[in-house]
Amino acid sequence: MHKVLTDKIINRLTLYHSILSDYIEKEIEYISSPQIADLLHIDNTQIRKDIAMIGYKGKCKVGYKTGELKCKIEATLKFKTVKTAVIVGAGNLGMALAKYDNFEAYGFKITALFDNDPVKIGIKINEKEVFNLNELQFIIDKFSVKIAILTVPRKFAQKVTDFLVNAGIKYIWNFTPCVLNVPDNIQVWNENLIGNFLQFTVGVEDNQTF
Amino acid sequence: MHKVLTDKIINRLTLYHSILSDYIEKEIEYISSPQIADLLHIDNTQIRKDIAMIGYKGKCKVGYKTGELKCKIEATLKFKTVKTAVIVGAGNLGMALAKYDNFEAYGFKITALFDNDPVKIGIKINEKEVFNLNELQFIIDKFSVKIAILTVPRKFAQKVTDFLVNAGIKYIWNFTPCVLNVPDNIQVWNENLIGNFLQFTVGVEDNQTF
Repeated sequence: MHKVLTDKIINRLTLYHSILSDYIEKEIEYISSPQIADLLHIDNTQIRKDIAMIGYKGKCKVGYKTGELKCKIEATLKFKTVKTAVIVGAGNLGMALAKYDNFEAYGFKITALFDNDPVKIGIKINEKEVFNLNELQFIIDKFSVKIAILTVPRKFAQKVTDFLVNAGIKYIWNFTPCVLNVPDNIQVWNENLIGNFLQFTVGVEDNQTF
Repeated sequence: MHKVLTDKIINRLTLYHSILSDYIEKEIEYISSPQIADLLHIDNTQIRKDIAMIGYKGKCKVGYKTGELKCKIEATLKFKTVKTAVIVGAGNLGMALAKYDNFEAYGFKITALFDNDPVKIGIKINEKEVFNLNELQFIIDKFSVKIAILTVPRKFAQKVTDFLVNAGIKYIWNFTPCVLNVPDNIQVWNENLIGNFLQFTVGVEDNQTF
C-alpha cells in the first residue's frame, strides 16, 4: 500500500495527525472531514479520499473517531518504527532540530549531535550530547545509525558528506543549500527550505504587495 | 506560465539553481543535463523537460550556458522580486533562519525578528534586530511587510497567529507543528519539516535497518 502514498498525501496525513492530537488533548471524540477542511482550507472530498485510502472509515453524521484515526495514520506512516539518527552540525539549526520534541512522536530518535567546535563538544541539548566528529564512527556503529541530519555550513557540506558516507551512513537529510555528490546507494533528501516556500510565493499574483 | 509550475518543478529548479551557482563559482561555462542528472540522481529527460518548460534551450553537444540558465531560473521563480518578511520567534530556529544567507539570493529580505524575551530584545542576528512583539505593528506598517515566518513554541502558535493577522500579515510561513486557524484571506504555508522527511523514510523497505 505504501507504494501509492505520494508525498502530498503523506504531507496531508501528518497535518491531519497534528489536528487529531489537538482534538484528543481537548478530549473531543469525533472529527468530521468538513472540520478538518476548515482548518486546512482544502476541499473535504480530498480529506475523505485520503482517509479512505489508508483504510479507515468514518461513521455517518458523526465523522471519524479521533483516537482510532490517529492510530491508523501512525501505523500507515510507521511512526512507531524507531528511526535512529544523528545531527551533524551543532549550529542554530542543528540545535533547533535537537530541541524539536515532535521528532520522537514521529519515531525519530536523535542519538547524538556532532561538531568540530571544541566549545560545543560535551554540552547537552535536550539530553543529547554533542560529540567531536571523530567519534562519529564509534557512535553510529554502536547504535546502528543509518540516518544523518546534515546542518553544517555550506562550505563543509561536501567534505562532511564524504566522511559520513565512508562511515556507513545510508540516508542523508540535507539542510545545507548544496547539492551533495554521493554514490548511488546513498539516499539524499534535500530539504531545500526556501524551495518549499517559493512554491507559495510564485503562485501569488504580481500585483500583490510583497 | 507560472500557473503550470508545480511544486515539484519549482523544487527541482531551485536545485538546478544551486548546482549552477557552484559551476559558475568554478568558472565552468556549460553544463549538460546528464551532469545535473548525475548529481541529483534523477532522469535527465526530466531535467531537459523542466528547462524546456521555462523557455530555455541548450546547445547541441555542449549543453546549457550556466550563467544564462541561472538567470532564466531566477526570472521564472522571481528571485529578483523583493519579498519582505519578519521572523516571529527568536529561538534557535528563528536565529538559524535569520543567519541563512541564501534567503537573500531568493529575494527574501528579513527586516526584523520579534520575541517577547527581554534578554533577546535589542540583539542583532546577521544585522537584523530583535524587537519586542509590541513593536510589530509599527515595523510591518513602516516596511509594508506581508509575510511572517512563524518560529514560536507550539503553545504560543495560535495566539501569535491571531496577533499577526490582526496586524495585517497576509502570508504565514508556519514552522510550528500546529495547524493554525486563520481567516480565508490569509495564506498559511505549513513547513511541516518532519512530514517532508517522512516521505523519504516511508518508502524504505521494512527490512532495512533503521
